[in-house]
Amino acid sequence: MKKVKIGSVGLGRLGYEHARNLATLIPGCELAALCDVAEEQAKKVAEELGVPNVYTDFEEMCKNPELDAIAIVTPSFLHTAQIATAMKYGKHVFCEKPLGTDVAQCKEAEKVIEQYPDLIFQLGFMRRFDKSYAEAKKKVDAGVIGKVVLVRSYTQDPRSTIESTLKFAPHSGGQFLDMCVHDIDLIRWFTGANVKNVWGLGGVFEFDLYRELNDADNACAVLQMDNDAVGFMFTNRTHPAGSNVETEIVGTHGTLRIANVGAKNLLTIVDENGAHEEYYQDFLSRWHEAFVAEMTAFADHVRNHTKPADLTVYDGTAVSEAAYRCKESFETGKMLSI
Amino acid sequence: MKKVKIGSVGLGRLGYEHARNLATLIPGCELAALCDVAEEQAKKVAEELGVPNVYTDFEEMCKNPELDAIAIVTPSFLHTAQIATAMKYGKHVFCEKPLGTDVAQCKEAEKVIEQYPDLIFQLGFMRRFDKSYAEAKKKVDAGVIGKVVLVRSYTQDPRSTIESTLKFAPHSGGQFLDMCVHDIDLIRWFTGANVKNVWGLGGVFEFDLYRELNDADNACAVLQMDNDAVGFMFTNRTHPAGSNVETEIVGTHGTLRIANVGAKNLLTIVDENGAHEEYYQDFLSRWHEAFVAEMTAFADHVRNHTKPADLTVYDGTAVSEAAYRCKESFETGKMLSI
Amino acid sequence: MKKVKIGSVGLGRLGYEHARNLATLIPGCELAALCDVAEEQAKKVAEELGVPNVYTDFEEMCKNPELDAIAIVTPSFLHTAQIATAMKYGKHVFCEKPLGTDVAQCKEAEKVIEQYPDLIFQLGFMRRFDKSYAEAKKKVDAGVIGKVVLVRSYTQDPRSTIESTLKFAPHSGGQFLDMCVHDIDLIRWFTGANVKNVWGLGGVFEFDLYRELNDADNACAVLQMDNDAVGFMFTNRTHPAGSNVETEIVGTHGTLRIANVGAKNLLTIVDENGAHEEYYQDFLSRWHEAFVAEMTAFADHVRNHTKPADLTVYDGTAVSEAAYRCKESFETGKMLSI
Amino acid sequence: MKKVKIGSVGLGRLGYEHARNLATLIPGCELAALCDVAEEQAKKVAEELGVPNVYTDFEEMCKNPELDAIAIVTPSFLHTAQIATAMKYGKHVFCEKPLGTDVAQCKEAEKVIEQYPDLIFQLGFMRRFDKSYAEAKKKVDAGVIGKVVLVRSYTQDPRSTIESTLKFAPHSGGQFLDMCVHDIDLIRWFTGANVKNVWGLGGVFEFDLYRELNDADNACAVLQMDNDAVGFMFTNRTHPAGSNVETEIVGTHGTLRIANVGAKNLLTIVDENGAHEEYYQDFLSRWHEAFVAEMTAFADHVRNHTKPADLTVYDGTAVSEAAYRCKESFETGKMLSI
Repeated sequence: MKKVKIGSVGLGRLGYEHARNLATLIPGCELAALCDVAEEQAKKVAEELGVPNVYTDFEEMCKNPELDAIAIVTPSFLHTAQIATAMKYGKHVFCEKPLGTDVAQCKEAEKVIEQYPDLIFQLGFMRRFDKSYAEAKKKVDAGVIGKVVLVRSYTQDPRSTIESTLKFAPHSGGQFLDMCVHDIDLIRWFTGANVKNVWGLGGVFEFDLYRELNDADNACAVLQMDNDAVGFMFTNRTHPAGSNVETEIVGTHGTLRIANVGAKNLLTIVDENGAHEEYYQDFLSRWHEAFVAEMTAFADHVRNHTKPADLTVYDGTAVSEAAYRCKESFETGKMLSI
Repeated sequence: MKKVKIGSVGLGRLGYEHARNLATLIPGCELAALCDVAEEQAKKVAEELGVPNVYTDFEEMCKNPELDAIAIVTPSFLHTAQIATAMKYGKHVFCEKPLGTDVAQCKEAEKVIEQYPDLIFQLGFMRRFDKSYAEAKKKVDAGVIGKVVLVRSYTQDPRSTIESTLKFAPHSGGQFLDMCVHDIDLIRWFTGANVKNVWGLGGVFEFDLYRELNDADNACAVLQMDNDAVGFMFTNRTHPAGSNVETEIVGTHGTLRIANVGAKNLLTIVDENGAHEEYYQDFLSRWHEAFVAEMTAFADHVRNHTKPADLTVYDGTAVSEAAYRCKESFETGKMLSI
Repeated sequence: MKKVKIGSVGLGRLGYEHARNLATLIPGCELAALCDVAEEQAKKVAEELGVPNVYTDFEEMCKNPELDAIAIVTPSFLHTAQIATAMKYGKHVFCEKPLGTDVAQCKEAEKVIEQYPDLIFQLGFMRRFDKSYAEAKKKVDAGVIGKVVLVRSYTQDPRSTIESTLKFAPHSGGQFLDMCVHDIDLIRWFTGANVKNVWGLGGVFEFDLYRELNDADNACAVLQMDNDAVGFMFTNRTHPAGSNVETEIVGTHGTLRIANVGAKNLLTIVDENGAHEEYYQDFLSRWHEAFVAEMTAFADHVRNHTKPADLTVYDGTAVSEAAYRCKESFETGKMLSI
Repeated sequence: MKKVKIGSVGLGRLGYEHARNLATLIPGCELAALCDVAEEQAKKVAEELGVPNVYTDFEEMCKNPELDAIAIVTPSFLHTAQIATAMKYGKHVFCEKPLGTDVAQCKEAEKVIEQYPDLIFQLGFMRRFDKSYAEAKKKVDAGVIGKVVLVRSYTQDPRSTIESTLKFAPHSGGQFLDMCVHDIDLIRWFTGANVKNVWGLGGVFEFDLYRELNDADNACAVLQMDNDAVGFMFTNRTHPAGSNVETEIVGTHGTLRIANVGAKNLLTIVDENGAHEEYYQDFLSRWHEAFVAEMTAFADHVRNHTKPADLTVYDGTAVSEAAYRCKESFETGKMLSI
């Protein structure tokens, strides 16, 4: 099995997760370079993970001829430009979501990627690589539940991290962009349809900060798809039991539910609170295996010169566009079409 | 305990359920009269249940001075007039939902009831009397989950009865009126708020009949309440596992779910299909105990000269109004306000 | 429907439950007499429930020619004699478990009952009338799970009542007699076999009192049935989440579980402890419907002159015998045969 | 991170699983050699996994000075001798369960291992490395459920593989040795106690073959531990829904259950059979992550010169001894002490 050599940029919380996975858990993969503007941090992680090359300049890393591919895990506003740079030097690209901070940036990314038809591009919609979501998709495609009529998807952060959430809120882009993009991706993926109309609802029930931000602390959006299927999303930051991402797919002949009851393992605890399972306490532990699986898939694509069939740059644009329309709908109180 | 004497009109499927409950299962209650236009059926049931008086003329039954109260379980278009007749003769009234077949009829019923302030009126929103729903309400009122931000409620008929459902469809009033009224009642009850805006969505995914009826076979509606809480309803007729009515109440500090997994009892079956519980196979068995509980409450109100505090004729009107707006929204594709 | 008139003796906690059910909830039944040595209590309950006849002398009540049947809910040591008295006066008898306080008393009860072949006798194994247990039995009899190979049954009292449990312990007869008799009944019922060998195990893990009583605070027993099926029972008094009675029936082709997770209704609560259901908090609320169902069945038997086909006095004896052998096995540390 | 170089012997189903994990999924590990008497198979796997050295002679592999450690995944009767050979050449040893095919062999293995106090030895009780079991152990040790009073553990093979099971039955050593050893290990681990008395029960309910083998197709065993805690095991080969390994740990203050309902992921399917999760279909998929975790732990021990604190060769002997006594108890019908 030919080794795939990858350079990774960005060493925040998720950047570190990807770097560690690339260095130790992705079969047939070598983390050959790391890049971050914070040189100390980059050096420290490189030493810990045994990475031979460290950069503070992204373009310098891209020039390294040893590297087959680049993993971009930087702040969103850098994505489009970094995709362009990496591809200029002939590197395959894995890029974390979102594609860009507005639809214009997404369109720009599309153009870049179209220029390099031989290069592989994969977007970080890791939920698709979670084994429960992947199995659900397989069943939907096999017709197990008939035609999909409703996809309901919740993304709820744990209350335990509410303080850091509130601190980050002004820079987050708002609930619809920060939280709902993964749900929009799932709704499009499971219905096999595009968004036609949206309505964003919700309100401020607990934290006045969100009112100042023209945002909601509890937000919903309804998506009418172009095949009349319906998407319903809900998000908040105060789930008491831990990180809660659950999705329901109702079909004409059956229903699939992912994480109908959150459970980080097969352990049930019976105590004075009844019988219950423990939720994952944060999104990194919830999606750890999915992060590994998406990077394994990316490395396989690079090794075999294949492309992700149904996860293209255009999905990234479509998701961003829908998220922006939900936000606008919430702000104006109007149902909007796309 | 003073016996309460009740006369019941209407002996369809639900009428028979109420009659049998009144005759045998409601403590301190006597089913003293039965009325139905189908004389044979009325006599047969009267004999089976030991009911001394049988009528084919509703007004005649109302004249019977022995009776304390009337239970109306007839087709919806008769409700308003029968409420008026019963009250004219001084009878307390239990009336099945809906109050009327349009908002004008509901308003008429309101006027009648306002004329007789000493008479008790109770509407058949039996879900409120189900022990799980009642317990949920108690917890919401006690603040267990903080402020209510989202109520999601599904009403799904079993596919096993699809043939009779389709036969009845043209006379049903449509999904929003036939299926969603109970969900609207629950959303208003749990949020403690009135409906401000609605959007009806969905489509025809399996049965062309619904297209002819300008209806959907899979229908959703979103309700924006006047306190910014959100109601989300979904209904179809093809639930594979049995009758499925489930409701979720999300609050700022916790979530309550009723029938998150349907189960008619505490029996789990492990077979080649995994571990599963059996759903109730029809709505009569699902709600049997709630029907008994609501009639027990009604008999208690009659005996003690009390009134249902938060279940008034105005709730009936508000629910019908919202259901009609959902239907109109679905038909026009527009978000509508109330 | 001919009214069945019943006199009930014993007004402890369970006696009151039966009296109230007989007076208000059993269709076609009239509670026509009450008897208790505590005259005040008997008069008070009679007034509350509208019972016309009150006795302090059991034989006097049995002489009342109006009564069709007697319900015996007194301390165990009185059962055998009271059955004899009631039958002497031609009354059908419902008797709470256990039949007697030792096997000799059970044998005596057998003889009495054999003397009156026209009189109906029903023993209070109410679990059989619980809708989940009844449904399980129906499925077992229909061969749904093949041959029964293992029945596991737990009876756990809630820790919340531990103080009164400890107070009652010296007079309870011990864990095997006080707690396990219902489980033994279920094991015999579901396997359709008699007990061949037993081993009682367990120990004192928390409450030294049980050591003084030559008993265990956590007790198990294994029953080898005469068809090689196995029964396994466990009992303690410290279940944290409420009253826990659960039973598993493993067959060659599937498994049935009753109350695999305790839940008093269909409400799920998601809070900082995860998603959980609430257990019944005491055995009276857990079995209320079963108590009503068993008395309804008894009244039906009396009305129709039928007999419980598979719930005879001999079951009572067999269960008591097995319970005594478990106790002896625990005390001697030896496996014992029956 | 220093690479640990391992040679693996035995390429049956489980041998291949371990080889593939060592080659691709264990961080900081290199599968440097493979050995199997079937040369073709060894060469094929070596090529697939990129393993440089292939042997048919076990001792030759052990002479390879590059290797740090040996993984033994051969038939049980070879284990003791292979441990001795590997240690003679200074290799650390991971050995699949059981330690030997009788207690004498286990004692021999003990002596060998005592001779090499500097070498690391780890036995393949992989369930301990499953994240649910590991979490349960952590909670037990932290006192979350008080004192452990009962451990119940089931091991049920799926009916779907019954044909190969029956073919293998005569060479399996019988249910107690083949299936229950993992359960015995768990019971000792969770109770922290040794086995005092055992009773093996069960019978032949479906497959006469087991009668010929003096074995049961549905077997139970009860273990009385030396601290009065109780272990209860059940095993059969006909679980309809897939592979079922579940364990319950009852303590004085709470209960832990692992896989109370089997579920291979977080996907719930609602169809005409109700709402259910899919079980793992075989033991390899059920325990894949545990196999990876145990080998990761072994590699870490080798790298860091540490030893598994509570998983020693003496545990292997104690488990085998208890399993043999259960078998003997079943065959003689007597409760036996250890």
